[in-house]
Amino acid sequence: MVPLNIGMIGYGFMGRAHSNAYRQVPTFFPGLRYRPVLKAICGRDAERARAFADLWGYETVETDWRRMVERPDVDVIDIGTPNSTHAEIAIAAARAGKWVLCEKPLAMNRAEAEAMVEAVEAAGVPNMVWFNYRRVPAVSLAHQLVREGRVGRPYHYRATYLQDWTMNAELPQGGQTLWRLEAAVAGSGVVGDLLSHSIDTAMWLNGPIVAVTAVTETFVRQRRHQQTGEIEPVTVDDTVMMLARFANGSLGTFESSRYARGRKNFNTLELNGADGSLRFDLEDPQYLEFFEYRDPSGRKGEDHLAGWRRIHVSAHEHPYMNRWWVPGTTIGYEHSFTNALADFLEGVEKGKPAQPDFRTALETQKVCDAVLASAASGRWQETGVELPER
Amino acid sequence: MVPLNIGMIGYGFMGRAHSNAYRQVPTFFPGLRYRPVLKAICGRDAERARAFADLWGYETVETDWRRMVERPDVDVIDIGTPNSTHAEIAIAAARAGKWVLCEKPLAMNRAEAEAMVEAVEAAGVPNMVWFNYRRVPAVSLAHQLVREGRVGRPYHYRATYLQDWTMNAELPQGGQTLWRLEAAVAGSGVVGDLLSHSIDTAMWLNGPIVAVTAVTETFVRQRRHQQTGEIEPVTVDDTVMMLARFANGSLGTFESSRYARGRKNFNTLELNGADGSLRFDLEDPQYLEFFEYRDPSGRKGEDHLAGWRRIHVSAHEHPYMNRWWVPGTTIGYEHSFTNALADFLEGVEKGKPAQPDFRTALETQKVCDAVLASAASGRWQETGVELPER
Amino acid sequence: MVPLNIGMIGYGFMGRAHSNAYRQVPTFFPGLRYRPVLKAICGRDAERARAFADLWGYETVETDWRRMVERPDVDVIDIGTPNSTHAEIAIAAARAGKWVLCEKPLAMNRAEAEAMVEAVEAAGVPNMVWFNYRRVPAVSLAHQLVREGRVGRPYHYRATYLQDWTMNAELPQGGQTLWRLEAAVAGSGVVGDLLSHSIDTAMWLNGPIVAVTAVTETFVRQRRHQQTGEIEPVTVDDTVMMLARFANGSLGTFESSRYARGRKNFNTLELNGADGSLRFDLEDPQYLEFFEYRDPSGRKGEDHLAGWRRIHVSAHEHPYMNRWWVPGTTIGYEHSFTNALADFLEGVEKGKPAQPDFRTALETQKVCDAVLASAASGRWQETGVELPER
Amino acid sequence: MVPLNIGMIGYGFMGRAHSNAYRQVPTFFPGLRYRPVLKAICGRDAERARAFADLWGYETVETDWRRMVERPDVDVIDIGTPNSTHAEIAIAAARAGKWVLCEKPLAMNRAEAEAMVEAVEAAGVPNMVWFNYRRVPAVSLAHQLVREGRVGRPYHYRATYLQDWTMNAELPQGGQTLWRLEAAVAGSGVVGDLLSHSIDTAMWLNGPIVAVTAVTETFVRQRRHQQTGEIEPVTVDDTVMMLARFANGSLGTFESSRYARGRKNFNTLELNGADGSLRFDLEDPQYLEFFEYRDPSGRKGEDHLAGWRRIHVSAHEHPYMNRWWVPGTTIGYEHSFTNALADFLEGVEKGKPAQPDFRTALETQKVCDAVLASAASGRWQETGVELPER
Repeated sequence: MVPLNIGMIGYGFMGRAHSNAYRQVPTFFPGLRYRPVLKAICGRDAERARAFADLWGYETVETDWRRMVERPDVDVIDIGTPNSTHAEIAIAAARAGKWVLCEKPLAMNRAEAEAMVEAVEAAGVPNMVWFNYRRVPAVSLAHQLVREGRVGRPYHYRATYLQDWTMNAELPQGGQTLWRLEAAVAGSGVVGDLLSHSIDTAMWLNGPIVAVTAVTETFVRQRRHQQTGEIEPVTVDDTVMMLARFANGSLGTFESSRYARGRKNFNTLELNGADGSLRFDLEDPQYLEFFEYRDPSGRKGEDHLAGWRRIHVSAHEHPYMNRWWVPGTTIGYEHSFTNALADFLEGVEKGKPAQPDFRTALETQKVCDAVLASAASGRWQETGVELPER
Repeated sequence: MVPLNIGMIGYGFMGRAHSNAYRQVPTFFPGLRYRPVLKAICGRDAERARAFADLWGYETVETDWRRMVERPDVDVIDIGTPNSTHAEIAIAAARAGKWVLCEKPLAMNRAEAEAMVEAVEAAGVPNMVWFNYRRVPAVSLAHQLVREGRVGRPYHYRATYLQDWTMNAELPQGGQTLWRLEAAVAGSGVVGDLLSHSIDTAMWLNGPIVAVTAVTETFVRQRRHQQTGEIEPVTVDDTVMMLARFANGSLGTFESSRYARGRKNFNTLELNGADGSLRFDLEDPQYLEFFEYRDPSGRKGEDHLAGWRRIHVSAHEHPYMNRWWVPGTTIGYEHSFTNALADFLEGVEKGKPAQPDFRTALETQKVCDAVLASAASGRWQETGVELPER
Repeated sequence: MVPLNIGMIGYGFMGRAHSNAYRQVPTFFPGLRYRPVLKAICGRDAERARAFADLWGYETVETDWRRMVERPDVDVIDIGTPNSTHAEIAIAAARAGKWVLCEKPLAMNRAEAEAMVEAVEAAGVPNMVWFNYRRVPAVSLAHQLVREGRVGRPYHYRATYLQDWTMNAELPQGGQTLWRLEAAVAGSGVVGDLLSHSIDTAMWLNGPIVAVTAVTETFVRQRRHQQTGEIEPVTVDDTVMMLARFANGSLGTFESSRYARGRKNFNTLELNGADGSLRFDLEDPQYLEFFEYRDPSGRKGEDHLAGWRRIHVSAHEHPYMNRWWVPGTTIGYEHSFTNALADFLEGVEKGKPAQPDFRTALETQKVCDAVLASAASGRWQETGVELPER
Repeated sequence: MVPLNIGMIGYGFMGRAHSNAYRQVPTFFPGLRYRPVLKAICGRDAERARAFADLWGYETVETDWRRMVERPDVDVIDIGTPNSTHAEIAIAAARAGKWVLCEKPLAMNRAEAEAMVEAVEAAGVPNMVWFNYRRVPAVSLAHQLVREGRVGRPYHYRATYLQDWTMNAELPQGGQTLWRLEAAVAGSGVVGDLLSHSIDTAMWLNGPIVAVTAVTETFVRQRRHQQTGEIEPVTVDDTVMMLARFANGSLGTFESSRYARGRKNFNTLELNGADGSLRFDLEDPQYLEFFEYRDPSGRKGEDHLAGWRRIHVSAHEHPYMNRWWVPGTTIGYEHSFTNALADFLEGVEKGKPAQPDFRTALETQKVCDAVLASAASGRWQETGVELPER
């Protein structure tokens, strides 16, 4: 096996999730050529970075990402920092010849994303964006069923990603833990944070989105800043709703919000086609719901059996599940990162980039930009997505 | 159409449910030969009987069931009175040549039930017991799937019938509305009231029960009597649990209780067989859940689709549903009585008795008696059930 | 009790549902002053009308609605005919001094609806539109919880009404049974048929919708006409998706379709507010789902109990349920009409019109018109809704 | 931190699950004094043991458990081997002064279990049995709610543990992977494998079981032996059903089976008490269902809100969940082992043994023995359980 030295930038929530994937992947995906080595963690606060390194087993600590990028003993730069830093780091890393992994959303906007794509492609370095929900086994199974033709001509796609964690008006904004509420750092609110996940999955399952109309809203208009202590305007969107036209002729509705009381991680999708329908909900990640239409004329007498099937995605026949435990047992949130990492490493090994790479994630960025533009203009907006067949 | 004069005895809850069925059946099952006419209602309290007659459209009122049974203008005696009166009325009605419909449970015990069977068979009169839950469309569909061989060799049957309406220790017992808590009137508690439903359905779906072991319990041991005002011992069982052996080699668990907090009408069944499984819950009566096993060797690649299917039993292909509204709409509790009545009338018309007739209900009574005997002895008890093929 | 002579126009599906309500309401809502009498049924085909009269117990038959409207022995005109006939009949009936009940949607468009409102108000006759789903007990309970303040400041409303019955491209259009696929008769497709239900309920629960943006689509562009046999263009919308702004500041998504494979009568709503959330699904009509937020600072230690509550709307404390059977039993589709009729009769009796009357239904019509206008223009459209406090 | 040298015996499924716990616990439970070190893995096949050591990071390999037990550089013996070996290894380990962790069920029978308890108590060594399902957060939350008095006087307990993986009659028995089908190695079939889990959880939540009546069955009576190739009788039970009396006066039903088509890991429990009910299902491990009864007289007007609450056990207020990811995210099967290990290490640290220790697991063994005795005799059997207050 080939050691692969990881340089992780950011020790927050995503730093933890990615680090766990690096540690678990060799054991649960034992055939891979590359074996991640936790070489260095980078964070601005040296003490916290040191503590993180001790906890997770990183060999060294950096406090300046520029130094990290230059280190010859680092093979992979993994970007787990706030959105406003993605482009600069990724471009520098690519130029330094590093493989680049980047947390979603890829960038603050389309222009940044294009520059990032250009950089990694110019450098010819492997790259991937952590849209990890593709690798929830039930979502991967949905993709497989679509590919198998079980859905048929698609008519409708609907997605929600609903949470309620920012509803409290006393919650501050900004700083290390709440930068998602600050547009200068996050780029947008739920559009980049939640809707981007829904769009990535939607275009994976149902192809390019060609036009959108959208509305956004900020319900709590000002909050105390966590660092300055000042009451300041909230600059991000709390919610977004959009209608979409797909290239294949189907129509979609999308909604993302942090103001949906009682919804914690309600990342759902439903696809309705001529031959079948699929539904997934991240709060119940072990299930894929599938309605299989059987032509009454073709298979007489079967109509009385039609119904939504609740597939417990825990069999060894299901994507990734033979890597984990015995049939019937479930896996958790973090496994989607490990599955994604395994696919990435295998993709590099086989010379076939794992998706979504930066180029694919750029297309998602285009839709996000179109959504924000439409919310501003009140009109339908073309997205300019040009997705290749995947 | 032939008018069929109904003499309803009892104006309580079952009097309402049956009367509604008589009124609705000609309109929703228009092809039947017999058309019920609400000829007479019988109740001990003349004023209340008169009010009931006015409300439901009965032509006349009786206060003595013996007079009702003798009336030449009554064709059918429908017994909706407390259990302790079933045998005497039914036998007299049969001897008078009336058709006899009887609320469940058929009798206080096996001996009574045998006498009732003898009476209706000697008289050669059509007869049926209102085990209405067979006619919930989802339960009828379950029976159809069993007949179609979709379950295969049966291994397990499990049934519950759980409620919580008698948990309040302040609830009195006895009298017109709470006679179900008084053994002298009800015969037993949940055994006759709830478990008998479970047993009727179980033997319909899975064949004869040959032996049982059971336990019963009375949690609130004394209550005030509604009529006397005295604190008296509670003489009925609040709960029953039983294990059962079926003639086909499968094993079953049964539980009935009025002390299951939060369960309102939780009449459930599950049947597991080599080729499939079925599940039903009366609180969600519009669904039948079905797991269809597909032999992996026979149909390769289908394993990833296995799952419990939630059949919304609302299509015109489903039992009874083409009689009611449009596909996708649901029916209610009372429709099971109307469906049962339609089957009964059609059975008479075609010379093929609708099930369960008295003879079939006697078999259920045998199991109930065996359950009570086992609860007393602490041992397995043979039931003596001899069910013909149905 | 005062007899109320009903003149029913139309013997189709709605003729059945309304007739059933007239027959059942006196028995299940016994305190009402008015007692419906099935005086006359009107249909163009005399033979079919006669058969319908025999089945349901109508005393007389008409084949021309104009004659029906003029009959002095008819008190109420109930319009169950295709949408294109509503206005003319309703206006004539009002002018003749009849009470007017009308199937939804009220009219083909806003102008017609305004003329109808003017007519009934000028005549001073009681009137109601059969938006029956308000009277599903779980929906009425949702309204009650909103009124009780349990939802708090509303943020989001989302509704779907999904079916799949027109997906088959071989299904013809037009004629007596498929006029819903013909714009000249139906006015629109799912907008009037399904979305109007969602809008009526939404504005009842969450107040006026002030602006919308929408898209519609017709997936199967031509079908054989049922009467002419000719292949003709399909003129109605198969699906509609819309975003909405409510007067109270919340945002909504709405979707109606007849191309959602596996969805049979998937009329759902969800309302998210600061203090709680509600969800309903017509395929599971016996449930209201409720998430109750408890302020952590106010009731410490309760957070570990937060969860979506599945209320089985079958207790006597729930709307309408004490009128039907015992606690724990469910009712069906048709009961919503009976409940609505009872409310209407009680409203007349008390001088307080039951909702939605024509004036209220006009507001729903305005939104439908705005939806179609927006779908044509691709822009946000003001609705002009001016709903009074209800 | 104090290094704690682990000697793991067995490299099968449980070897993997335990090893993962040792690796993950220091990172996710960072405050613990003891830090597991993967010192040695023991398995009879040296090559496979070496491969396992490489995969999981064990420092050394043993092929004879007796040598492992004697190694001075091993602090903890963890027994993940077939049931027939538990007693001998555990007793030797205790005598050698090792801490002892043992996979469930503790022993082949009560006599063995008693000897094991005696050994660990005589040696005074920390000990625990891996009844990991107590540490599924939703099950721990159930225990917390019981302790908080939210269930009140208990009436009913019901548990199932249903699977379907041995239904195929072509599945062989015996050998390394299918020893669970061989009584000489497993002691019993589903009684020790599945029912023991249900009993451990039941007595944790609802106290001692004092008497049982049970039935067992073996549906496929002979299978080919995996090693010998001979067709041999199947010596274990495929299914068990039992009724139970608890010391607190409540009654229970239990069922375990490997012949329940469509049930994969259907480990469910339901507890009904005067004040509330709880339900859990291991196939949906992220939920605890809770019905909270509110006395109508005490809190008037709240009855219309009663319903089963589906608690998504993913908040930081829930047991263990603040150790893992962000609120709303779920964990998997293996986390229950890590949680259990953390509790064990913390228990040793604080001098308060984590449950279930060997003494507590002995009580579960007594019930299992009583179940088998009752299945043989057909009679109720006292269990002899003497559980202290926990």
